[in-house]
Amino acid sequence: MMIVMKEGATEDQVAAVIERVQAAGAQAHISKGELVTVIGAIGDREHVANLGLEGAPGVDHLVPILKPYKLASEQYKRGERTVVEVDGRKIGGDHFATIAGPCTVESREVILDTARAVKDAGGQLLRGGAYKPRTSPYSFQGLGDAGLPLLAEAKAETGLPIVTELMDVRDLDAVVGVADVIQLGARNMQNYTLLTEVGRTGVPVLLKRGLSATLEELLMAAEYVLKEGNPSVLLCERGVRAFEPSYRFALDLMAVPVLRELTHLPVIVDPSHAAGKRSLVEPLSLAAAAAGADGIIVEVHPQPEEAICDGPQQLYADRFAEYAEQVERAAAVAGKVLSNV
Amino acid sequence: MMIVMKEGATEDQVAAVIERVQAAGAQAHISKGELVTVIGAIGDREHVANLGLEGAPGVDHLVPILKPYKLASEQYKRGERTVVEVDGRKIGGDHFATIAGPCTVESREVILDTARAVKDAGGQLLRGGAYKPRTSPYSFQGLGDAGLPLLAEAKAETGLPIVTELMDVRDLDAVVGVADVIQLGARNMQNYTLLTEVGRTGVPVLLKRGLSATLEELLMAAEYVLKEGNPSVLLCERGVRAFEPSYRFALDLMAVPVLRELTHLPVIVDPSHAAGKRSLVEPLSLAAAAAGADGIIVEVHPQPEEAICDGPQQLYADRFAEYAEQVERAAAVAGKVLSNV
Amino acid sequence: MMIVMKEGATEDQVAAVIERVQAAGAQAHISKGELVTVIGAIGDREHVANLGLEGAPGVDHLVPILKPYKLASEQYKRGERTVVEVDGRKIGGDHFATIAGPCTVESREVILDTARAVKDAGGQLLRGGAYKPRTSPYSFQGLGDAGLPLLAEAKAETGLPIVTELMDVRDLDAVVGVADVIQLGARNMQNYTLLTEVGRTGVPVLLKRGLSATLEELLMAAEYVLKEGNPSVLLCERGVRAFEPSYRFALDLMAVPVLRELTHLPVIVDPSHAAGKRSLVEPLSLAAAAAGADGIIVEVHPQPEEAICDGPQQLYADRFAEYAEQVERAAAVAGKVLSNV
Amino acid sequence: MMIVMKEGATEDQVAAVIERVQAAGAQAHISKGELVTVIGAIGDREHVANLGLEGAPGVDHLVPILKPYKLASEQYKRGERTVVEVDGRKIGGDHFATIAGPCTVESREVILDTARAVKDAGGQLLRGGAYKPRTSPYSFQGLGDAGLPLLAEAKAETGLPIVTELMDVRDLDAVVGVADVIQLGARNMQNYTLLTEVGRTGVPVLLKRGLSATLEELLMAAEYVLKEGNPSVLLCERGVRAFEPSYRFALDLMAVPVLRELTHLPVIVDPSHAAGKRSLVEPLSLAAAAAGADGIIVEVHPQPEEAICDGPQQLYADRFAEYAEQVERAAAVAGKVLSNV
Repeated sequence: MMIVMKEGATEDQVAAVIERVQAAGAQAHISKGELVTVIGAIGDREHVANLGLEGAPGVDHLVPILKPYKLASEQYKRGERTVVEVDGRKIGGDHFATIAGPCTVESREVILDTARAVKDAGGQLLRGGAYKPRTSPYSFQGLGDAGLPLLAEAKAETGLPIVTELMDVRDLDAVVGVADVIQLGARNMQNYTLLTEVGRTGVPVLLKRGLSATLEELLMAAEYVLKEGNPSVLLCERGVRAFEPSYRFALDLMAVPVLRELTHLPVIVDPSHAAGKRSLVEPLSLAAAAAGADGIIVEVHPQPEEAICDGPQQLYADRFAEYAEQVERAAAVAGKVLSNV
Repeated sequence: MMIVMKEGATEDQVAAVIERVQAAGAQAHISKGELVTVIGAIGDREHVANLGLEGAPGVDHLVPILKPYKLASEQYKRGERTVVEVDGRKIGGDHFATIAGPCTVESREVILDTARAVKDAGGQLLRGGAYKPRTSPYSFQGLGDAGLPLLAEAKAETGLPIVTELMDVRDLDAVVGVADVIQLGARNMQNYTLLTEVGRTGVPVLLKRGLSATLEELLMAAEYVLKEGNPSVLLCERGVRAFEPSYRFALDLMAVPVLRELTHLPVIVDPSHAAGKRSLVEPLSLAAAAAGADGIIVEVHPQPEEAICDGPQQLYADRFAEYAEQVERAAAVAGKVLSNV
Repeated sequence: MMIVMKEGATEDQVAAVIERVQAAGAQAHISKGELVTVIGAIGDREHVANLGLEGAPGVDHLVPILKPYKLASEQYKRGERTVVEVDGRKIGGDHFATIAGPCTVESREVILDTARAVKDAGGQLLRGGAYKPRTSPYSFQGLGDAGLPLLAEAKAETGLPIVTELMDVRDLDAVVGVADVIQLGARNMQNYTLLTEVGRTGVPVLLKRGLSATLEELLMAAEYVLKEGNPSVLLCERGVRAFEPSYRFALDLMAVPVLRELTHLPVIVDPSHAAGKRSLVEPLSLAAAAAGADGIIVEVHPQPEEAICDGPQQLYADRFAEYAEQVERAAAVAGKVLSNV
Repeated sequence: MMIVMKEGATEDQVAAVIERVQAAGAQAHISKGELVTVIGAIGDREHVANLGLEGAPGVDHLVPILKPYKLASEQYKRGERTVVEVDGRKIGGDHFATIAGPCTVESREVILDTARAVKDAGGQLLRGGAYKPRTSPYSFQGLGDAGLPLLAEAKAETGLPIVTELMDVRDLDAVVGVADVIQLGARNMQNYTLLTEVGRTGVPVLLKRGLSATLEELLMAAEYVLKEGNPSVLLCERGVRAFEPSYRFALDLMAVPVLRELTHLPVIVDPSHAAGKRSLVEPLSLAAAAAGADGIIVEVHPQPEEAICDGPQQLYADRFAEYAEQVERAAAVAGKVLSNV
């Protein structure tokens, strides 16, 4: 932690800061410039983080030096990359995964038809929500518990592992019974109850970035899961809030190479929710794969016009194979291969 | 709902849209311009909202006409404003309330000392968190259950009603046992589990705006609570994410007059969390009051330098009376009076 | 400048950085933590700013310590505040000014009628644009040269000094002939040609913050003017781009107290362009004044419904006196008085 | 234009709006819903745009139906795409172009060395700034006039056409004497003086998107150029302002497919300025090409460590061929080929 003093801070103020740094068990290291004095507090991460010197007399601002996350940091695994393996499908490192399925498990027919299309196109995992977070209390909230056995059936038939969302800690056991990967949605990225409980299950987690979360906050949320002993976190960029009105969210593809430098965890991209519109999904998917993403999670449906939710952004199941092939070509440019079983 | 067709949409495409609108039980109303045809879908709110025409052939985009919230809308109470009354303190309409207290209930002494200062300064409610949402899993997470009796004691001594945060649905009963107002934090604005359960309690709710929530989304979150039969929702602006690095969050004071036009619910402003810095808290509080807010919620502490969290932004308890007086003057400019018991 | 090395940076990389710092004529000051080494480069502002070490081997990132502006900084005048005096009206320090007028000088009648209303209401300066920056090439672009004599006539009749916008460096002489304060619009905040030329005139400048300019960038733009020897810069907050769709721009009232800490220059607030809507203008004006702004610049028109541009946000001239009185009350809460002649 | 009335608007208010629409020479088309009345104003684009009904009694808000730009719209060329040809290099349609060069023309040696590297790597155009817009008045402002002959020399030797920036209308003739493509920077996207004058020259224009410009505003800026009779506008996405602190600007790759639907003009992506960091430039370039961009403009330098500006983001000239080949592969995924002479 560097403590930057104000121009014109007095000797006494500097001395008071030094004393406080030392009292916290850290070492104070003083750099006196012509205009400004900077005091480095060197010591244990925890002690230094909680010095509480912000706003103290003569202090202009603090500059943290150490990253606030540890288990999620690139340094923690000394350059080795986490590869999450789900029923033999690898995600991360050189392995790219396509996760696809309908927005919501709306019926047995829809989930089974889609699962077959994903399987035939060479997709790796099947997604589908039984519980759906909806902005409006008047919208369809998902089939709930009744949706879970349908996911299990789709897995039984196609062998595709299941990614499904958990919203309420009281549904944890039910979801764990079916999910191969538990999804935590953007609105729950900082739901510390869910992060902690999911961390305790050991089931791989697909953690969506909050609508206005910084990448550091996303990594801190992952840290909550990792800290409970669950090493299998897939980070998911799904678009952030921005000022542009011509699309729903701004897909932040810079997150892909930036996260690669900050963390060893795999990075998945969800182009569907940012786009909100089918015609944008393929170009964004190709861009994500070319940027070096470790996978995409995308919505597909046998008849999007009839879908209960998110119809306009879901791809057509009968053209999905063609799309998946294009994505594979783009991933190859970035040096990634699909991990088929 | 207006359906705006693309330039060059064919007659068949227009006919298909009309057919679909009518099939949904709504009336189609066609406006044919020189370049573009617009189809109005007139009918029941629910039917019209779920037409699923976005992305249909020839359709450029949809324009919703009706607001998606109903119980929260200004029209719902025909101009009458909601006044939430908590133990005799009125909030809303012409009544302004000052809600103050430490960031977290860190000890018996701190919460009692602060409560006395708030009481003496003429404050209306006491705030303090037993459960604390923290970005880092390594930060102090609040006293938890042990903090609740301390809040009860502070209330017993000063008579100030208590505002405290609920984070985990499993703590609902414990919190309801102490809280006069349940706070839902910014990170939980779209935690539909909490919104629904809190709606069922009937206890007044202070609902903080999410870090990147639009005002419409905030009102939709309030609608979740109102729909369960709980009419007492206090909306709280606490700063949104923005690009400016010189402060923590951008306090959106435009939300105050805009919400006044959109809803009958009271609007509270939290200047502390946006500022992150003591020196900004008073000017922002005065601005909020002058803009017509129905109250402020502000952090105050006997010894901010020793506070476990948010020290730099907490006001000094021994100068709180002076601050509260200034806020009262600003509220008076906007035509509001404090509601003392 | 602090140079933060990567975890695991080698001794050689550290040595190379130190060498480079010293070669630039600065002193290197090393702080070695358990995980990370930080090198302070102490010396002349210019040398240190251009070390070019970002991205060098082993370097994680740089942290500038000194602010990049000098003449605009609060420290430069050692706590004294700049008071700009225009024909006897003081702006800054304890003095608050109301600058008002129509969006554009659309006719002799409109500008004269408005000037009288502003004068009668106790306003300090008259605003009105002869040249108008318009998003669309098909919109009215202002009367241009023909508007300037009308402003001169309004000043002759009412004695109110004139604030008017300059957009094209080729119009500089014509504008200087009439303007008491030259306005540079938000789109031109970083038009370095204009900043430099206006700096050379010595005429006071009202510099609007760009739509997504940080406060530091605003101060750097002011520095361009100050550097040419023109000390009279009024900074103007007019709303920044944000994600909220229910208003045009997000008026950043936090800028008021933050700029007060960063600079000695006066801060003016423009509530009209952010709001885009008349009903929001008064609450935002009161908030700005209560937050400690040194003035407001607001649009007013005898018949807003007939205005050529920005009609919906212009106040009614015949109710302007009442509005101005309310603003004066709010300014008083912040300890400011109007400077009448 | 649709005029949405408030819930509870009176018959008289509706009648007044209709009268005003008709008085403007447009047709009024009324849709009466259960709660809300919507009035369509059908007629000439100009008349309808300037109805001035926003804020009128009983009016809730206006919804524009027609896009405000015409010449730039996709419909204007009925699906045909603009291909800009510069000395035989095609940009747009199926043709991808790599534009590369140093940030600034800092010396004869640097510009010539870089030009050779770009030529050898199969690049299409050479970029380099003689005039540089700089945030700080204390930074190097470019060689100015002295830089232009160096660009001419680089062209003479390599045959590469030149892209260079114009900042001051007074430099127009000098820049036109050398530039094959005139660049207008992000800070000047809404500098209407420059847009108009450059429109009159007929020289192709590379128009960078402003830091917080919407895509509609970008197209309106292009419209200023097109309206003067200059059909050769290259739109350039270069990153927008966002809240994430780990990179400089948020490269908006969604702009690529969205602009493809809105306009016939080619879209170029500048990954260097958004990234601010070399290691991010290649992944972002691949993503841009895979998303369907018509070209990239990228910074490259023989010795980035010694560069006067933007060193950390400039690619190494001696590794540029390898990079260019990767970009070509990604462009191929999107169906584009390089246009070599």
